[in-house]
Amino acid sequence: MAENDKREEILELGKFGLIAKLSEKFQIHHASTLSGIGCDAAVLKSSKNNSLLSSKIFLENVHFDLTYFPLKHLGYKTIAVAISDILGMNGTPTQVVVNIAVSNRFSIETVNELTTGMQLCCNRYKIDLIGLDLTTSQSGLTIAVSVSGEVESEDLVKRNGAKENELICVSGDFGAAYTGLILLEREKKVFEVDPNSQPDFDGYDYVLERQLKPEPRLDIIEALKKENIKPSAMINVSDGLASALINLCKASHMGCDIFENKIPIDAVTFQTLKEMKIVATTIALNGGEDYELLFTIPQSDYEKIKKVENISIIGYIKEAVAGY
Amino acid sequence: MAENDKREEILELGKFGLIAKLSEKFQIHHASTLSGIGCDAAVLKSSKNNSLLSSKIFLENVHFDLTYFPLKHLGYKTIAVAISDILGMNGTPTQVVVNIAVSNRFSIETVNELTTGMQLCCNRYKIDLIGLDLTTSQSGLTIAVSVSGEVESEDLVKRNGAKENELICVSGDFGAAYTGLILLEREKKVFEVDPNSQPDFDGYDYVLERQLKPEPRLDIIEALKKENIKPSAMINVSDGLASALINLCKASHMGCDIFENKIPIDAVTFQTLKEMKIVATTIALNGGEDYELLFTIPQSDYEKIKKVENISIIGYIKEAVAGY
Repeated sequence: MAENDKREEILELGKFGLIAKLSEKFQIHHASTLSGIGCDAAVLKSSKNNSLLSSKIFLENVHFDLTYFPLKHLGYKTIAVAISDILGMNGTPTQVVVNIAVSNRFSIETVNELTTGMQLCCNRYKIDLIGLDLTTSQSGLTIAVSVSGEVESEDLVKRNGAKENELICVSGDFGAAYTGLILLEREKKVFEVDPNSQPDFDGYDYVLERQLKPEPRLDIIEALKKENIKPSAMINVSDGLASALINLCKASHMGCDIFENKIPIDAVTFQTLKEMKIVATTIALNGGEDYELLFTIPQSDYEKIKKVENISIIGYIKEAVAGY
Repeated sequence: MAENDKREEILELGKFGLIAKLSEKFQIHHASTLSGIGCDAAVLKSSKNNSLLSSKIFLENVHFDLTYFPLKHLGYKTIAVAISDILGMNGTPTQVVVNIAVSNRFSIETVNELTTGMQLCCNRYKIDLIGLDLTTSQSGLTIAVSVSGEVESEDLVKRNGAKENELICVSGDFGAAYTGLILLEREKKVFEVDPNSQPDFDGYDYVLERQLKPEPRLDIIEALKKENIKPSAMINVSDGLASALINLCKASHMGCDIFENKIPIDAVTFQTLKEMKIVATTIALNGGEDYELLFTIPQSDYEKIKKVENISIIGYIKEAVAGY
């Protein structure tokens, strides 16, 4: 309880005081950010043809469990997840607006840790945090992140452009984040039974990091641009590879053939799931929270895509069949 | 329990099916909306110099109580509140992105009612709903609304432009929404003691409507433009008139003199508070949820502002004094 003596109460500083204090740590990276935190709305100046807008909401005990989720990681992840949606449109994420709802269970240090994680992600991906609001919650922590981005008309990629015989590509690998979640949930249960137990996470770093600190694939968007590849359709894989494939095919009025043995699964993910007697492909298809990119390209781009690292071709687009 | 037999379960339709179904009711009003619900992010085309971005979050039992808050009104209010922030910058609200988190306590009908209310507000104020996502909550209902708007550079008004001797103006009246809340909370307590009691809200329509279905002051923004008045500073009054005054003065490095008897309070608000032996000015200053506009204009605009309906001059800007 001694620790509590040191903790700063949110009430002491007041809502606006705390917002001002937390705001100081965020830098501005984009000329399009004319004015940020401090007014009713942020002001942006469009330099590109189109702007992109998306938002995500994160609820305690639904999207994260604070018994094992470090706040700094959580802050990082909320920004990473939100900006992934802009990448899914082949756009550049530029600004975020954040709303945080906390109960009196949380101290200023909590909110500070959370926003420090946000700041790390914002700096890494050159995102301007231009809105920050705090509100009260009855018990849990809730975070909403709105993200704005930009894209030239000719670069915009939607879900509906996939054509017959095109190659289906994915970045990175699948199932790791969900495998990390299974591990964390398992250790939580062990800890509940024996509070003296120490979690043994040796060798599981990769799957844990994929769960706790996912990285949006800005590198892939940049690499595709460098190789002059514009996908015909693209989607951010957030709810699982299977769900993303269905959504892309539906939007394009197409079907697909996927080769199970081509679905990229990391060795650690595979081994961890094997130990738990879980079929890796099931998790790779349905686990979710991968935040990888799924996209289609014409076969004529095959030589070009081979030059891009971390890309796997997992199948091809075919005509939609009845009953699909 | 018979009612439950009829209710459609969210699970039956699936997340994406439900989103598609709910999306159908929303119309597109703006040419700047290039593409809305259905991709990772919405696509906007800027027609004005600057875009504006803001977001709000609404939590059950913090921001609303479903025991007396009709879902349709709630949907309407979430949009109304969010777009008020764009008006506070002298901008035109154009698009919203909505995230709804619901537990299995809620049926499709719940989400349908909620989005119908959102639709009513969107249609009334010509707002394009361009993003709609659903997620799970453990118990309560949580709603996040991101709003985008536009404004020409020369029309943009921030909080920090107030100058000495300028007139402080407000739209509408204050304290009504909070008075409505007191009434609703009182009747809830009566109902908890005697479930057969019927609430008696006769004559209280105005204050109840201000709480349950606030209207953003787009009319004021349009009227000011018509009279060629550009405020030197402006703010959306959401957390109470006193808080808004402090924020505007602080941002402008100014002080102010306010005439208590000039603060507009509706007769119903005044009478209701009098019955409850509450000082009306206290509620008018600190009640909150008014969503009126507070702005400053030079004295030379006095003749012009007199032509705008629903505006009160409540004081003037003066130099900041030490210790303020």
